[in-house]
Amino acid sequence: MAIKFALLGCGRIGVLHARNLAKADGARLETVFDPNTMAAEAVAKAHGCKVSTSVEDAIGEAEAVLIATSTATHADLIELAAKAGKAILCEKPIDLDLDRVRACRKAIEGCNVPIQIGFNRRLDPGHRAARDACAAGKIGKLEQVVITSRDPGMPPRGYTAVSGGIFRDMTIHDFDVARFMLNDEPTEVFATGSALIDPTIGSDFGDFDSIMVIMRTADGKLCHINNSRRAAFGYDQRIELFGSEGMVISDNRKAHELKFYGSTTTESAEPYLNFFIERYAEAYKAEVAAFIAASRRPADPSHVRRRLPRARARGGSRRVCQDRQEGRGPQ
Amino acid sequence: MAIKFALLGCGRIGVLHARNLAKADGARLETVFDPNTMAAEAVAKAHGCKVSTSVEDAIGEAEAVLIATSTATHADLIELAAKAGKAILCEKPIDLDLDRVRACRKAIEGCNVPIQIGFNRRLDPGHRAARDACAAGKIGKLEQVVITSRDPGMPPRGYTAVSGGIFRDMTIHDFDVARFMLNDEPTEVFATGSALIDPTIGSDFGDFDSIMVIMRTADGKLCHINNSRRAAFGYDQRIELFGSEGMVISDNRKAHELKFYGSTTTESAEPYLNFFIERYAEAYKAEVAAFIAASRRPADPSHVRRRLPRARARGGSRRVCQDRQEGRGPQ
Amino acid sequence: MAIKFALLGCGRIGVLHARNLAKADGARLETVFDPNTMAAEAVAKAHGCKVSTSVEDAIGEAEAVLIATSTATHADLIELAAKAGKAILCEKPIDLDLDRVRACRKAIEGCNVPIQIGFNRRLDPGHRAARDACAAGKIGKLEQVVITSRDPGMPPRGYTAVSGGIFRDMTIHDFDVARFMLNDEPTEVFATGSALIDPTIGSDFGDFDSIMVIMRTADGKLCHINNSRRAAFGYDQRIELFGSEGMVISDNRKAHELKFYGSTTTESAEPYLNFFIERYAEAYKAEVAAFIAASRRPADPSHVRRRLPRARARGGSRRVCQDRQEGRGPQ
Amino acid sequence: MAIKFALLGCGRIGVLHARNLAKADGARLETVFDPNTMAAEAVAKAHGCKVSTSVEDAIGEAEAVLIATSTATHADLIELAAKAGKAILCEKPIDLDLDRVRACRKAIEGCNVPIQIGFNRRLDPGHRAARDACAAGKIGKLEQVVITSRDPGMPPRGYTAVSGGIFRDMTIHDFDVARFMLNDEPTEVFATGSALIDPTIGSDFGDFDSIMVIMRTADGKLCHINNSRRAAFGYDQRIELFGSEGMVISDNRKAHELKFYGSTTTESAEPYLNFFIERYAEAYKAEVAAFIAASRRPADPSHVRRRLPRARARGGSRRVCQDRQEGRGPQ
Repeated sequence: MAIKFALLGCGRIGVLHARNLAKADGARLETVFDPNTMAAEAVAKAHGCKVSTSVEDAIGEAEAVLIATSTATHADLIELAAKAGKAILCEKPIDLDLDRVRACRKAIEGCNVPIQIGFNRRLDPGHRAARDACAAGKIGKLEQVVITSRDPGMPPRGYTAVSGGIFRDMTIHDFDVARFMLNDEPTEVFATGSALIDPTIGSDFGDFDSIMVIMRTADGKLCHINNSRRAAFGYDQRIELFGSEGMVISDNRKAHELKFYGSTTTESAEPYLNFFIERYAEAYKAEVAAFIAASRRPADPSHVRRRLPRARARGGSRRVCQDRQEGRGPQ
Repeated sequence: MAIKFALLGCGRIGVLHARNLAKADGARLETVFDPNTMAAEAVAKAHGCKVSTSVEDAIGEAEAVLIATSTATHADLIELAAKAGKAILCEKPIDLDLDRVRACRKAIEGCNVPIQIGFNRRLDPGHRAARDACAAGKIGKLEQVVITSRDPGMPPRGYTAVSGGIFRDMTIHDFDVARFMLNDEPTEVFATGSALIDPTIGSDFGDFDSIMVIMRTADGKLCHINNSRRAAFGYDQRIELFGSEGMVISDNRKAHELKFYGSTTTESAEPYLNFFIERYAEAYKAEVAAFIAASRRPADPSHVRRRLPRARARGGSRRVCQDRQEGRGPQ
Repeated sequence: MAIKFALLGCGRIGVLHARNLAKADGARLETVFDPNTMAAEAVAKAHGCKVSTSVEDAIGEAEAVLIATSTATHADLIELAAKAGKAILCEKPIDLDLDRVRACRKAIEGCNVPIQIGFNRRLDPGHRAARDACAAGKIGKLEQVVITSRDPGMPPRGYTAVSGGIFRDMTIHDFDVARFMLNDEPTEVFATGSALIDPTIGSDFGDFDSIMVIMRTADGKLCHINNSRRAAFGYDQRIELFGSEGMVISDNRKAHELKFYGSTTTESAEPYLNFFIERYAEAYKAEVAAFIAASRRPADPSHVRRRLPRARARGGSRRVCQDRQEGRGPQ
Repeated sequence: MAIKFALLGCGRIGVLHARNLAKADGARLETVFDPNTMAAEAVAKAHGCKVSTSVEDAIGEAEAVLIATSTATHADLIELAAKAGKAILCEKPIDLDLDRVRACRKAIEGCNVPIQIGFNRRLDPGHRAARDACAAGKIGKLEQVVITSRDPGMPPRGYTAVSGGIFRDMTIHDFDVARFMLNDEPTEVFATGSALIDPTIGSDFGDFDSIMVIMRTADGKLCHINNSRRAAFGYDQRIELFGSEGMVISDNRKAHELKFYGSTTTESAEPYLNFFIERYAEAYKAEVAAFIAASRRPADPSHVRRRLPRARARGGSRRVCQDRQEGRGPQ
């Protein structure tokens, strides 16, 4: 039987999830909620589901809850849904404040429900194939990870003002991918950044638009992350795993394999898939599929994070440290 | 309102079309028919539609008919559906016998219905982008077309016995792509072939498994096609358009962009998408979408062939000629 | 001891050979001759060698003769040098008239000297690696060869007037490469062409600027050649060998591996090496090295053609046939 | 007139330089010196030059001195040659001890001779094209540099014992390339490393075999370097320049462009050029040519470093700082 879903939040990412839920095997989009009633009704009309008038109603009608609301509401909604015994797929992050994350973890202790955070990149076919190749020993012992992750363009200033900063809103994905690829926790982190694209986001918000990170695990594996808020050529998403017997690179992707040869350019490829909606379209579908599978079966597939990650930002503007994440899930 | 479809034929390609129809916007799979009742019921169950007990019943219940039955039945079913006033999407070919094709054309004269033949490669995103680039003048005046089309492996002998030969069952797609890319009709055709993979298909069926073709249009454009029934590295589908100001190549496609670097191979890519079901998955979806659009609107989008192509095989084993196809559709 | 060379002809290709001889191990450029005395003196000055006042003098002073004069003189000079007992490296072709070639062969029967014709592409590292991979069985049994060979731009009309036509001045290299790659002789040849770039070379000279060829060997191997006198993106030199267990492609080459990513182009590569001087620079050096080796040792290395090829053009403008070349060299 | 060279040191790199000098325009290898007389005589025989019995004699006979001796002798020989008024091309580094480097700089103040240090990678055609593209504004304002530099295999333990450590013997090239690409001096440097390939080089020598570095310039440009002593797939030399309007990547290089397609690998390329001798063959030639040009003309071409770089290693094992290098050359 298809699992009944409540979708909370009908913004850009909510609309995406609604479409994926509507076409996913084993799921039925039962109801949607959004404080913006028109947004909720549009989704409901497109996919033939109900509109709930409160989060409580929505959660009450469903077996599984997909939380795609604004960040500040995530922790509250997780607690609400967990206590109602519903399976939870929540967009990242849990909260910008690590204390709130810890309180959330404590609040839902004992709620025996699957919880998955929306780190969709783990489900990207290329990134996953990289990890699988590594896990299968094809590159020997992993030694270095290099993650390149650059957005096609600057977000609106309004977003920057509330996002929590580039490390928390953008690098968060790369920190997650790094942990996924390293299959280990970094014990040392060095990070630095600059406001090169728009110096005023430095002066106004104390934020960066260009950053570099190096992390090191207890056994010496090294990991580099670079981020930029703007790449002239589009969304730049590459992962390199270097090991004792070889290397794999999960490279950028294009809509198709047309190449152009002209008097000024040779072997010029198609533009990269523009941004996360296009680039990670398969990952979002796979994320929902993995969640459906995990919500059904008691077994925990390797790619599903049932636990609440613990992360702590410490120190000044150029230094970010992450505690080893203990990875104990709700009992 | 969604267009009601009858699907005739629930074999491999019928199952594929059923799935695409089920997820297509603007279509509803109303009923299916297959002489193999179990096959029909399996499709009906998967997509929640009816099973008809005859082609007449199926056609009667629908606004549009998708013909995915065996080749020998195509012309009869086209006539039946056209006379019933239904829009028709029929798998290639219309018939192995050109006289039967001509008779079919004559039989449905006056039936004012859209007819589209399943030349899906025209809808492949890369191939289409190649043609669009050419049409937009990006490579200047088109001068040469080179089409490489090799299957991953030999078909069963039973198929070879009835397929009509490699030119009619395999090269037919490349002849179509050639006409699509040339945007013109060849006036001279030279073809040759060999039975290199399995000499017995030469001695037993007078067929080839490896062929090469050159075609020339009235104004001198040149086109080369090569085919093989077996490529050790998978499905090899490449199209090159060479013009006065540049070239475009629509290259092979992989599931993702993982590259491997090891002690014996460098920059080794993922395997190519294995065969037409995977390689042309988007093309099949786009084919159905184009047909839905054409069935709704009177205007004829450029990518939809509403007409019955006329093709005539002439001469001996090594020489194939194609008449200029007049392209007059049913009125 | 270094072999003493006489260079006959100090035009573009002669200058190239002079430079390669000057830096080659085992060779010494002893003397040069050119009816244009200034050209000869310039080469002599650059490389510190003598200027001869006649071909007879030049040949008399040397152990080996490199013939880089105009085509019409090749056969005479071969006869002269062979009768003088000198090793001969002669630029292609021997003569435009096949009867003259045959007469030359007859005239030098009994002159036991090494003769090598300047089919430099056999010595290109990539092309040679393709053949070596095939010979080593890496692609199984060879089934198809596809040769793409397009010049960057039209030659001067004066050249076209005397070159003997595209098949004899340009495709000649590809016919040679085809024989080298097939490791066999074609028994059937079909060729066609158009004057697309400059229709007046058709009307004025009966020549083509765009051609396509298919050849077939006795055992069924297929080979396609396409040529164009002008490629907007530069010198297009690709060879594809397709076999029962795989494929190798010797692709175009660039000066280095810079890639550019901008707002309008992605993964854009460097321009291809512009023309034969640059593209086949290594091949010209290897050609001289192979000739030096062959002139020294009695053994015939596999890559050296000691024999005079026999070729005959037969039939009309669109059909070229090549006899099996018997490959008996001078005794 | 050709400049007369003395080559000091006839080991592996000396032999390479001898061959390049022998074929370079504008240079003549006059004499060689090596404490190993047999090595010196072998080079002298190969290139037809003298053997000197002391460095003083060698220097005395030449106009320019190429120092390719062991590291410990570099500073002494620079002083000797500079005081003799000879142009100097010296292999890196000047000395492992920064105080010795400073003393050398002071010692030769007032010797008005060109001095070039053998940072050959600046002359690599691809790397140089990357910098030229950046300098020409093709990628807008430079923001990030990513340098990947991995050797094919571990050096002998004896080398590790005396090399000064990975940062001083291997990363030194990447620090130089970083400065060349940034066209600026880093003001902050963070570096970390591990002994992953051979843990005993950590325990025995306090050295690393795998390192990562981040540098930041005063105006915020970011630069990442990663090194490994062993890459299973060969010599891995890539440079990425990311700017406000695009990106260039100078990628790895192969001997030619053969690609292999088989049942287990697709699009597999040739192995990378194995190590610095092959990979940077053109760079070594260009280095000598640039030095010859600089020794002749008073003007200082952009690619020639006439100055003594000042570098200082500071702090513990994981932290390396480089002073801004003032770039004042000898007056």
